[in-house]
Amino acid sequence: MGKLKIGVLGSTAGTDMQAVIDEIEKGALDAEISVVICNKPDAFILERAKKHGLKAVCIPSKSREREDFDREVASILEENGVQLILLIGYMRFLSKWFVDRYENRIMNIHPSLLPAFAGGMDLDVHQAILDHGAKVTGATLHFVDEGADTGPIILQKAVDIAGDETKETLKPKVQKAEQEIILRAIRLFADGKLKVEGRKVKILG
Amino acid sequence: MGKLKIGVLGSTAGTDMQAVIDEIEKGALDAEISVVICNKPDAFILERAKKHGLKAVCIPSKSREREDFDREVASILEENGVQLILLIGYMRFLSKWFVDRYENRIMNIHPSLLPAFAGGMDLDVHQAILDHGAKVTGATLHFVDEGADTGPIILQKAVDIAGDETKETLKPKVQKAEQEIILRAIRLFADGKLKVEGRKVKILG
Repeated sequence: MGKLKIGVLGSTAGTDMQAVIDEIEKGALDAEISVVICNKPDAFILERAKKHGLKAVCIPSKSREREDFDREVASILEENGVQLILLIGYMRFLSKWFVDRYENRIMNIHPSLLPAFAGGMDLDVHQAILDHGAKVTGATLHFVDEGADTGPIILQKAVDIAGDETKETLKPKVQKAEQEIILRAIRLFADGKLKVEGRKVKILG
Repeated sequence: MGKLKIGVLGSTAGTDMQAVIDEIEKGALDAEISVVICNKPDAFILERAKKHGLKAVCIPSKSREREDFDREVASILEENGVQLILLIGYMRFLSKWFVDRYENRIMNIHPSLLPAFAGGMDLDVHQAILDHGAKVTGATLHFVDEGADTGPIILQKAVDIAGDETKETLKPKVQKAEQEIILRAIRLFADGKLKVEGRKVKILG
């Protein structure tokens, strides 16, 4: 069997990746982050990876054609034997080629209860939720298909919105939910307990 | 002060109204249901009202022009001194005239976490949620504006969806959440603690 090999794709600070690292370092998660690939040279996720002795690769994506770029990413994932791809704040749409190649092996975390507040890369999700006057939000982990935030939902977790909530107070609460479902889903994936049937992700056992 | 006078508009079984009746009958809610108005002659909500000695009025709405019908409803609400209108399974859109007249005094309960799975009268919401593969749903109580399920959100409550969930098992779970937030919102309204600012409903105190 061996440890599950995870590849992380990110463009931002990678806060949720820290939760995965912490869980692995304290011996509570039988997995390893084999490589972290970042498309933004100045993203903190690269620092975070290096700080923990993880292999970190920066491939600037600016002006790159989508599939051409994704093929380069895929070659690095292959070299590192990656079995599960985690998108953590990855601000780039994936090509059909990449999505097909890794069907049901790419997980994306989104800071809302999808299908509510799905959105493009530029949407300020937390602010949109507060502006809408929602009283409950949450986090969604889903397998990635060709759409934006449309793939089969693996896990969701609700978060209550307080009366005096701001973007700054809401974000860490939602991130806590994100991290909880990411860790849970990694374990389920490693144990072969996630089964995708159409839009539905069944949790076995 | 006196008891808050509630008017219920319904078209179906009025299950959630039962929770309000029970709470009033056991002396736990300082309010009264002054009148129940139903637009479907064979809807069980009429029986339910009569069983508890409540005034029940049936006004068949078929072929009626919207505002003309709503004016008749309003006259009955006025006669009975209604201060708060609860829509419980009311399968009819309201006219602008009615919505304007009772601004921030009409509450509607919807069996999802809006804006997810908003929808017209014919949408089978629970089935749509299950077909989407959602893992969390819930209930939303909102003030009614001219749109379908678009008004300011008063309260929401999340409900986890089990792996083997069906429409039949999900509905009572969501109804429990519906009833909880309806009762809470009636108390807040009666105490003058709901303040609407644009899309946001602030809960005072």
